[in-house]
Amino acid sequence: MYDGRMARWEPDARDRLQQAALDLYGERGFEQTTVAEIAKRAGLTERTFFRYFADKPEVLFSGAAALEEFVVTLVAEAPDSEAPIAVVASALEATAGFFNERRDFSTKRQAVIDANADLRERELIKMATLASAVADQLRRRGVSDPAASLTADAGIAVFKTAFERWISEPAQQDFATLIRESLDELKAVTAGT
Amino acid sequence: MYDGRMARWEPDARDRLQQAALDLYGERGFEQTTVAEIAKRAGLTERTFFRYFADKPEVLFSGAAALEEFVVTLVAEAPDSEAPIAVVASALEATAGFFNERRDFSTKRQAVIDANADLRERELIKMATLASAVADQLRRRGVSDPAASLTADAGIAVFKTAFERWISEPAQQDFATLIRESLDELKAVTAGT
Repeated sequence: MYDGRMARWEPDARDRLQQAALDLYGERGFEQTTVAEIAKRAGLTERTFFRYFADKPEVLFSGAAALEEFVVTLVAEAPDSEAPIAVVASALEATAGFFNERRDFSTKRQAVIDANADLRERELIKMATLASAVADQLRRRGVSDPAASLTADAGIAVFKTAFERWISEPAQQDFATLIRESLDELKAVTAGT
Repeated sequence: MYDGRMARWEPDARDRLQQAALDLYGERGFEQTTVAEIAKRAGLTERTFFRYFADKPEVLFSGAAALEEFVVTLVAEAPDSEAPIAVVASALEATAGFFNERRDFSTKRQAVIDANADLRERELIKMATLASAVADQLRRRGVSDPAASLTADAGIAVFKTAFERWISEPAQQDFATLIRESLDELKAVTAGT
């Protein structure tokens, strides 16, 4: 059957699909939502959905690779003179531009993930993959182990804490400020004060 | 068919099955090993295997709940005067009794996990579950967030680092010493020194 939509150019198809998917995951639950329903809500076809996303979870995790590349590139390009934790913290602060613009999306996404065990696991794996990519890049900068992996893990703990505060606190805060505050807090707790 | 072994008391059946499974996972790979082969190698029946373990991965993860309970209990019982990071570090140091006795088992187990993506994910989830249980217990001690979750995450980062050194360094080191050294290293890296 010829599908008239197939050839039509849909400049914002990706965003519409993502928005429709998030809304439906929130309303009905992730498991209960079908790709057909997402496409319908977005006024597009299933075929168009699969042109942008491999499957239903992909709608929630398509940004992970870009985030990782962004952070890893900043770690690679930081001045040699900076301490590893400062390099990682600066790279994480720089993600603020990305997050500050997507607070509504991020909040809805997080609620969907929190409600589903498989998605929580995938989120865990995403963060572990990011930690491991950061640790590898630190090693390439000449940081030895265990400092490289500890610094990366510390960075990810800071990131998670900042993100949780950013999502859950009613006052809209700057993500970069929360990264700095979380790092200060981590320094305080590890120092035992 | 009546199985003569069924009713026989096998005092070390669990250990024999675990040892046989680890050896086979190492020799043939986790995926390629069947429960029938494990039972045969241990000189026992499949039925006996399933009396001790729900499935093949369970052989590798059956200690997780006990480890978590042990650590969480120590966190709960620590003196009120101790700083949260000291409470967590002491609880992790106390696992040394468990690990120091099982270095051969732990080394083989880790090699099997490193070789299989699904098992690596399950190990990640195990560590995240432990972090979350420790954070909950810290909250019950009156530690507020984000300090509770940051302290727990810092503790798990220290644990992972100590464990990796303990497994990979040829000289047999005391696990508790490695926990202390890893915590010192984490303090140094977060301080930016």
